[in-house]
Amino acid sequence: MHSSILHFRRQRWNIRASKMSINTLNPIRSIVDGMKLTPNPEKPMIALSIGDPTVFGNLPTDDKVLQAMKDAIDSHKYNGYAPSVGYQKSREVLANFYSCPEAPLEAEDVLLTSGCSQAIDLAITVLCNPGDNILIPCPGFSLYKTLAVSLGIQVKLYNLLPEKSWEIDLQHLESLIDDRTACLIVNNPSNPCGSVYSKEHLQDILSVASKRCLPILADEIYGDMVFPGCKYQSIASLSSDVPVLACGGLAKRWLVPGWRLGWILIHDRNQIFGKEIRQGLVKLSQRILGACTIVQGALESILNDTPQDFYQRTIRFLKSNSEICFSELSTIPGLTPVMPSGAMYLMVGIEMEHFPEFLDDVQFTEHLVTEQSVFCLPATAFEYPNYFRIVVTVPEEMMVVACGRIREFCQRHYRPRSQDSAELDQ
Amino acid sequence: MHSSILHFRRQRWNIRASKMSINTLNPIRSIVDGMKLTPNPEKPMIALSIGDPTVFGNLPTDDKVLQAMKDAIDSHKYNGYAPSVGYQKSREVLANFYSCPEAPLEAEDVLLTSGCSQAIDLAITVLCNPGDNILIPCPGFSLYKTLAVSLGIQVKLYNLLPEKSWEIDLQHLESLIDDRTACLIVNNPSNPCGSVYSKEHLQDILSVASKRCLPILADEIYGDMVFPGCKYQSIASLSSDVPVLACGGLAKRWLVPGWRLGWILIHDRNQIFGKEIRQGLVKLSQRILGACTIVQGALESILNDTPQDFYQRTIRFLKSNSEICFSELSTIPGLTPVMPSGAMYLMVGIEMEHFPEFLDDVQFTEHLVTEQSVFCLPATAFEYPNYFRIVVTVPEEMMVVACGRIREFCQRHYRPRSQDSAELDQ
Ligand SMILES: Cc1ncc(COP(=O)(O)O)c(C=O)c1O
Ligand SMILES: Cc1ncc(COP(=O)(O)O)c(C=O)c1O
Repeated sequence: MHSSILHFRRQRWNIRASKMSINTLNPIRSIVDGMKLTPNPEKPMIALSIGDPTVFGNLPTDDKVLQAMKDAIDSHKYNGYAPSVGYQKSREVLANFYSCPEAPLEAEDVLLTSGCSQAIDLAITVLCNPGDNILIPCPGFSLYKTLAVSLGIQVKLYNLLPEKSWEIDLQHLESLIDDRTACLIVNNPSNPCGSVYSKEHLQDILSVASKRCLPILADEIYGDMVFPGCKYQSIASLSSDVPVLACGGLAKRWLVPGWRLGWILIHDRNQIFGKEIRQGLVKLSQRILGACTIVQGALESILNDTPQDFYQRTIRFLKSNSEICFSELSTIPGLTPVMPSGAMYLMVGIEMEHFPEFLDDVQFTEHLVTEQSVFCLPATAFEYPNYFRIVVTVPEEMMVVACGRIREFCQRHYRPRSQDSAELDQ
Repeated sequence: MHSSILHFRRQRWNIRASKMSINTLNPIRSIVDGMKLTPNPEKPMIALSIGDPTVFGNLPTDDKVLQAMKDAIDSHKYNGYAPSVGYQKSREVLANFYSCPEAPLEAEDVLLTSGCSQAIDLAITVLCNPGDNILIPCPGFSLYKTLAVSLGIQVKLYNLLPEKSWEIDLQHLESLIDDRTACLIVNNPSNPCGSVYSKEHLQDILSVASKRCLPILADEIYGDMVFPGCKYQSIASLSSDVPVLACGGLAKRWLVPGWRLGWILIHDRNQIFGKEIRQGLVKLSQRILGACTIVQGALESILNDTPQDFYQRTIRFLKSNSEICFSELSTIPGLTPVMPSGAMYLMVGIEMEHFPEFLDDVQFTEHLVTEQSVFCLPATAFEYPNYFRIVVTVPEEMMVVACGRIREFCQRHYRPRSQDSAELDQ
């Protein structure tokens, strides 16, 4: 028959998932799903693994934030479609909130997104083509790689230096740059490190980016979440010639990650992004539209009416819990915690040579669950073996109990370097 | 120097928007932005172009829907991260709401998304690879093409037949299928046509899909929004062997498009989608996460407590406004409106030979603004020239005035076929 000559005849069902879906890899899921996580039935489980500050109820958002939402609902003004980049008013409010003399912002520089995740997705997507590569921190938040790889963009991991409070190894960073490097992701304050970069270090990062003409994607979702005594500075506020897409959101500082409100702040310099990147972002925002309009409508009040005391209370709590955790773990032989300066995390090095029963951080944290019912995320999930990450948002009592159990676990499994150790072999 | 030998040295700024962002095309925007839309200063503007039922305030959502949101906020239970596919409870509630004996659903068959747009995006992305093609309706909602083209997927447009109430030209449809055809998109009830397919027509569509082993992406965002006397049936409920991804959301039926809650209902058949497509969807959902948790938390009450009367009131209004519009425009020489059976739209054919002053639907609708301050979307935006689309959600008085002005406009520009017309030429 005519049509069977012209057309291949599909004759059986054969539906396969697309390459993009297969290449969307979530390392945290694949590692955690591969672990035997059977807690000790005699001890209640304590999860120090969940990057969600709301799970234990000890860090509620502010009442003003909730009231702002209810007011937005009652106004009946925020049920229709917003522009794909967000309401003009909400963009204006964000621009005012984050504008500073060194990095001024106007409403046009702001896009609202469905969480910081979509902000990062749009930023990577507008800057990179398949075959390009991006520079991401190691250890680092796994979403960068997940998004990039699913889009056919390669990742190159630059090292952070635990001994220098997780500053970037700038030499290593620079050595990775090639002609297909499309952007540098800087996450400050950092997940999973809790590090906060000094002005000087940020300037040094900017120097590399400037020399090699690399735009920066600044993941500043933990912006301003820094402990007293430490100062947070947005990288854009220090940049004179490097254009920056700064990604943020309500998730962490306002303690409402489920609400999915994020943003991109476009800090162009010398028209390097120009119209093209702006328009590219606008076009991409039209694919699925962004944030829920009720949250957008509430944004003005959320940003302007949340009392300072709320932010400070959160930070004081995170600092105090970090100190408890750090000082407890510092005295445990075999562990090397690194004190954070912000965000909600603390990284702990495992001196694996003292725990010969365990192959790596995954086995170590697995057994910590089996024996002590304490779950910490092995830092292999952040491409950084032999560390684990502790989330410091849990209630203080829980943190204290968890640290005690970690001590018990380590004491039980710690082996001092034996006589026939490497030193004597030589 | 060593490093300048090994590495290409990036020496100047040259940041270009990615191909994907450049290929993200919004036909409505590009057509509307290209039009001279200067209303007649003597007549207040009436926009019959906006697919947002909330803009005029005459179609508010139900109080129960708003109350459900406030209750979700007050519960303090919905501020944290939900699973990337949505709360289990909300998925369960949706499964129950849409389950029927012919197409049963369980919670595992449901994914919550950021609007129906993200549902369509995920469904296309999981089923298609770059280089594949999808079949989309003509005229049809422009997002299908926008999403597909941005992903490197080709679109093939199958014709709808206005003289058969916009049924699909099945022969044409089938002629388009080739070995790279990855899915068939069926939009029922339809934007921009307002058509609602009969059971028989849906069965005929399924026969083609079954014969050619094509999965269906059913865009059923206007599901159940059909006029009294007409019956809506989901395509999945008629499918015995064709697997269907049914996309929907709260936007239209519940009149809250800004809230960005959508869903995918996975109707597998004979394990053709199997684990692979399910897992692919789950993985894709982890890229940016989905819907706002407050709306997710409110979903149970929104679905179960919204009074039937609310839905019926909306439908009665849409039907009555459609009838007013249809009967007015039917008597205008040169226009051929097609009466809808559902959704919120009505398509009007322009007998261009009677309006020789205008080149096409774009010029026609442009002048309708200039002279009468009435804006209708030219159907070129739906790849269907010489028609325009009217949104029937505007207040009745506005509809009446708008129709009067369209009449005046047509009367002024209508030219009967002249003596030297085509017939006499022959
Ligand atoms: C460093 C970092 N960036 C981005 C995100 C994602 O934020 P959102 O929940 O707003 O998408 C997270 C969430 O944990 C994060 O830790
Ligand atoms: C046919 C059709 N599908 C999908 C959508 C998008 O729905 P949502 O606003 O939930 O993303 C629309 C919106 O107008 C539509 O008309």
